Amino acid sequence: MILTVTPNTALDITYRVRSLRPHTAHRVTEVTERPGGKGLNVARVLAALGHEVTVTGFAGGVTGRALRDQLADTPGVVDALIPVEGTTRRTIAVVDTTTGDSTQLNEPGPQITPAEWAAFQEAYEVLLRSASAVALCGSLPPGVPVGAYAGLIRAARAAAVPVLLDTSGEPLRRGVAARPDIVKPNADELAELTGSHEPLQATRDARRRGAHAVVASLGAQGLFAHTPDGLWRATPPRRVHGNPTGAGDSAVAGLLSGLVERLPWPERLARAVALSAATVLAPVAGEFDRSAYETLLDQIAVTVDATAA
Amino acid sequence: MILTVTPNTALDITYRVRSLRPHTAHRVTEVTERPGGKGLNVARVLAALGHEVTVTGFAGGVTGRALRDQLADTPGVVDALIPVEGTTRRTIAVVDTTTGDSTQLNEPGPQITPAEWAAFQEAYEVLLRSASAVALCGSLPPGVPVGAYAGLIRAARAAAVPVLLDTSGEPLRRGVAARPDIVKPNADELAELTGSHEPLQATRDARRRGAHAVVASLGAQGLFAHTPDGLWRATPPRRVHGNPTGAGDSAVAGLLSGLVERLPWPERLARAVALSAATVLAPVAGEFDRSAYETLLDQIAVTVDATAA
Repeated sequence: MILTVTPNTALDITYRVRSLRPHTAHRVTEVTERPGGKGLNVARVLAALGHEVTVTGFAGGVTGRALRDQLADTPGVVDALIPVEGTTRRTIAVVDTTTGDSTQLNEPGPQITPAEWAAFQEAYEVLLRSASAVALCGSLPPGVPVGAYAGLIRAARAAAVPVLLDTSGEPLRRGVAARPDIVKPNADELAELTGSHEPLQATRDARRRGAHAVVASLGAQGLFAHTPDGLWRATPPRRVHGNPTGAGDSAVAGLLSGLVERLPWPERLARAVALSAATVLAPVAGEFDRSAYETLLDQIAVTVDATAA
Repeated sequence: MILTVTPNTALDITYRVRSLRPHTAHRVTEVTERPGGKGLNVARVLAALGHEVTVTGFAGGVTGRALRDQLADTPGVVDALIPVEGTTRRTIAVVDTTTGDSTQLNEPGPQITPAEWAAFQEAYEVLLRSASAVALCGSLPPGVPVGAYAGLIRAARAAAVPVLLDTSGEPLRRGVAARPDIVKPNADELAELTGSHEPLQATRDARRRGAHAVVASLGAQGLFAHTPDGLWRATPPRRVHGNPTGAGDSAVAGLLSGLVERLPWPERLARAVALSAATVLAPVAGEFDRSAYETLLDQIAVTVDATAA
């Protein structure tokens, strides 16, 4: 199975309002809730692609209970979340029905105790034994050491399980130094890590810091991949319009599934970009439009990057 | 005891963010939750003033459970909420830490079934027998008939229990026609009911429609009361700055406590305005600052309104 780790799981709530105007009152016309946090989104897409997936991380309180109840209804995803005393955070996306624009409010997440963190590490080592790949996803809740991902990467490497890291800031900086197989920063995260907004220079720097392969997501321009096998750009055939929530997580699912299926890099990247665009196009945030995905898959341009000459 | 009715109870959540900017992402730095809905706020203030209070209305789902758990920790308030299948709504107040301004997001509330509404009415009739006064507060959740408050007012009058109505729109229009003892609209609600923004004319019209006494809340200008005993204006000594959330509910608590203590109107109004201003001044939304309340109580100017001549 593929393992995804989400230390800071969330109950993702979407509110629809006519138009968000600061310092006024709004009637919410529609409320939807679903299990969230990057690794849970990645898992849902992997399961939809036919992979067996196990999710771990932390869940607690009434929001944690609601999250796990809904996860139990998600076919193909096995719940190996560690129960905690604190309460799982909510995230709220306020979507303007007039324009489709969304405003995000993210709670910080529960305080994790040293005992809970130790229990997680123990469970993680056991889960690694049956994992074909692992993705470490998103922010760290309070109480989890900032070097957490670096430790989890070393454990995966010791168990010979390929590991992908998708986080930002100091957890990314420390994680990269532990030599993950793939990191998937977006342009801002990569610039924060390396000081450069220029994809070639920035990905080269991230590799020098320890990452074996760097796949930078450049929003509507697709992906830029700097790997031991070469450099590629993968671009969608046209600019797609819709809700970008979860597009990055779908790209991670594409990369991971391609990795365990031993696809060559260009095919992994085409899949990641097609899934990402099909997620933007889906009416429900974070889902992907399967028929759009299948159509797009043949239309992704993957080119060897000329700037590498 | 005093009975407060809140058909559309809520779990009130407050988020602190640096500054709310539409169509961007925000880290919430602080999350607080408390039982909400106007009648629950009124009850908390009445209990703090030393009155025995019972709250009724509806509660259900995980948010209803969280609300009732927290209510159990509120001294002096008895929970007589009716359990429902649907899920109690959340309201979210997003407070900018830079300015103190707040943006409100209100979920619509659960669907109430005809059987749940019937169960409520039966429980209400029983509770009325031991009530010295009743307040009917706030919006109606989906499924509750728009004439609900009118029926509850008639039941209170049949039981010889004084009844105060604090709502808006069509439920207010129908409720007023059922001859409540007091209605407490704000300026906008009163204008919607009567078509007039002029306090004397609008309150006279509301009395003609059936209300025995009309106490209009005019924000920072205090209260304007049109009663069978006379007309008064009650004004705070100065403009107070802070969070106005719950100020209207504190005014209702002041009016109700004054009613059951058989205070003359000027004293009831002074108490209502002092509680309201002390609520704006309190650091926590919806609480009141007791020492500010005690100081302000002697400083409220209550004048017989000259325009009535």
